[in-house]
Amino acid sequence: MNASLIMIGTELTRGIIQDKNGPMISRELTHLGVHVSLFEILPDDGSIETVLAAEISRSSLVIITGGLGPTTDDMTRRVIADASGHPLIRDNESWNSLLAKLGERAYGPNEKQAMIPEGFSIIPNGNGTAPGFYGYAGSCLIVCLPGPPRELEPMLYDSVLPLIRKKLDLPDAERDEYSTFITAEAKLEELYEGIDPDLDWGTRFQDYRISLYVSGKTAGERGKAIAKLRMMLGEGRVADGDTDPLTILINALEKRSATVAAAESCTGGLASALLTERPGSSSFMLGAVTSYAASAKENVLGVPVSLIEEHGTVSGECAVAMAEGVRRIMGSDYSFSITGVAGPDEDENKPVGTVYIGFAGKDRQSESIMLKFISWGRASVRRRAAAAAFILLAMYIEGRSPSEIVPSWNYL
Amino acid sequence: MNASLIMIGTELTRGIIQDKNGPMISRELTHLGVHVSLFEILPDDGSIETVLAAEISRSSLVIITGGLGPTTDDMTRRVIADASGHPLIRDNESWNSLLAKLGERAYGPNEKQAMIPEGFSIIPNGNGTAPGFYGYAGSCLIVCLPGPPRELEPMLYDSVLPLIRKKLDLPDAERDEYSTFITAEAKLEELYEGIDPDLDWGTRFQDYRISLYVSGKTAGERGKAIAKLRMMLGEGRVADGDTDPLTILINALEKRSATVAAAESCTGGLASALLTERPGSSSFMLGAVTSYAASAKENVLGVPVSLIEEHGTVSGECAVAMAEGVRRIMGSDYSFSITGVAGPDEDENKPVGTVYIGFAGKDRQSESIMLKFISWGRASVRRRAAAAAFILLAMYIEGRSPSEIVPSWNYL
Repeated sequence: MNASLIMIGTELTRGIIQDKNGPMISRELTHLGVHVSLFEILPDDGSIETVLAAEISRSSLVIITGGLGPTTDDMTRRVIADASGHPLIRDNESWNSLLAKLGERAYGPNEKQAMIPEGFSIIPNGNGTAPGFYGYAGSCLIVCLPGPPRELEPMLYDSVLPLIRKKLDLPDAERDEYSTFITAEAKLEELYEGIDPDLDWGTRFQDYRISLYVSGKTAGERGKAIAKLRMMLGEGRVADGDTDPLTILINALEKRSATVAAAESCTGGLASALLTERPGSSSFMLGAVTSYAASAKENVLGVPVSLIEEHGTVSGECAVAMAEGVRRIMGSDYSFSITGVAGPDEDENKPVGTVYIGFAGKDRQSESIMLKFISWGRASVRRRAAAAAFILLAMYIEGRSPSEIVPSWNYL
Repeated sequence: MNASLIMIGTELTRGIIQDKNGPMISRELTHLGVHVSLFEILPDDGSIETVLAAEISRSSLVIITGGLGPTTDDMTRRVIADASGHPLIRDNESWNSLLAKLGERAYGPNEKQAMIPEGFSIIPNGNGTAPGFYGYAGSCLIVCLPGPPRELEPMLYDSVLPLIRKKLDLPDAERDEYSTFITAEAKLEELYEGIDPDLDWGTRFQDYRISLYVSGKTAGERGKAIAKLRMMLGEGRVADGDTDPLTILINALEKRSATVAAAESCTGGLASALLTERPGSSSFMLGAVTSYAASAKENVLGVPVSLIEEHGTVSGECAVAMAEGVRRIMGSDYSFSITGVAGPDEDENKPVGTVYIGFAGKDRQSESIMLKFISWGRASVRRRAAAAAFILLAMYIEGRSPSEIVPSWNYL
């Protein structure tokens, strides 16, 4: 079973941006047992035309990314129509959904984005204007996807991989999916190879999680390996299925119709930005304070000056006072705070990566925990601190005590 | 002048590692004015053989990376020898230098690494065992380099690019770089093609800017085209060189040693997270309030209940009150606020994409402006709102009035 990947974009062949789709797609195809025999990057200059004919004749599957935009150098859809021997027709559902998205700003060239070869089917795009499409040229399955990874990635996992498995009649490898948090990809690989190198482990790195796929051997043996990994990383660090810390927290809040507020120092608004990222977040999120300066901690959150003088701002005492302060001024059911040293320089004689997280809730004892992250840079410390706060607050909401959970955590 | 890039490695086609050489080489070739017409990644399975013949006949330059190791699946050098019609011979200088590097660890297969087609020349490799080599197949220049980027990169810059410039007799190209903000890539392309399609325009999309490269014609004509683009987008939307809205704001703050605070509603902490993203941000950033709920606007920022009842939270009046409120509680020199409808649903009868930004400063009249963004989704409205706030606050700090600037803005 051979597949060809063709990535189109002059910005790729010129090296202006780097293709991220190809490696992801070919990794997933390899997982499915499909051999990627060719992987080509072509400019927007029509060279796809000669390449496509050759690939169709020798492959069972051709995946094409890019070249679906509204501008004139995007000729992918015409070339595919020619190669498959079907005329381009307008898909009315796509055109209507495009009009609904763009309103009166839809302009002439956008209409091209709703054109597909006759007999082909649409692959919906939740994050952009160009849908993907698939169909056959002879016995070769052609799948065509938009270039931006933010649009392509969900389409790949939600629609394309299941479609390929079905159309190419691939055996269902038994495969379990998990999500892991806060650990580095290289460390995770080292750990699971140590647990059982005979299982087929695969990872997919994302900002706030690493998706982990395990296949091979029996379900029981896979389960045993994951149990071992859970123990090694610590409670709450490996979740079933595809999820992330933000979703885990939102689920905990929504289950209790509870509201939340945040007080941030080293994360500087990142946790707040994440909490408000999704539609409908106003149902649980009341507000947040970035108390970056010590004066903001004192004047806005009411952290006592004497507390800061005695313990410093990077302390469990300050974290608790921040969490209680923001809960009081925002009037939320629960709150958390993050204060620490994101780097690159140490602060208050605490090394980079030292982070305190505080928790408060109505009818609950406030508490704080300390984490020591390995420093892979400022952005990474901030991301991991926010992820840890979400996971631990979800547990706090469920009546657990973060300070009993954190001692089990390793490899931060 | 056409070039073909061929990257060899099964670990690349399987997505196990990602090719980093291709984008780098093609970017540099584009700089030199060489058109990269094909960019192929092939497995180690001999498919290079059929590909190479075709590329030699249509390109002036073929660069091949990878497939020079001592193991048996690396057949690149034999294929090149066949294609160029020269036998493989041992380059004694390379063999001696390899022996000197490896000492008694040199083993049989290493000898292969000193073999090159007769008449070809060696490109020394300071960081590995396999040297590169170059020569001609007919009139096509073939350059062959080892795959590891650590070895390839210095060879590319020190030897290969000067060699290509000399062998292909290339002139020095002049190129100007700009950054543009808040406009969609497709719209930008449509605009600049309309201004002067004979210039060589290139874009590189990033989260908070699109880098724009212009080359061709004279510097005067390039300058005229950019002036026209500036006029079409509006003041502050095209900047010289490679920069972004956050950097522009930070420069304005640092020039005056001024401090800033932010009040956010629809951006929910995003502007604050960006303002604290870089090391040293505590020198200008005091803090921020995400006043997501109306009660937070009233209780924390002191926005009068009557103001919200009369004008709503998505209004210029509320934006000004939020900006003044956060400046008061944080004690900053300047402040800004963002309140609007990020979507997906409209709010207070205002359509998605409606955003008000407020500005306040000591000894300055507060003011607000309204922007109507096309909705490409919630995340995009939030990103563009933050970018607009940074650009306009920088101008406000410089004594300008945002409400006099915004009417010149188009294509939001």
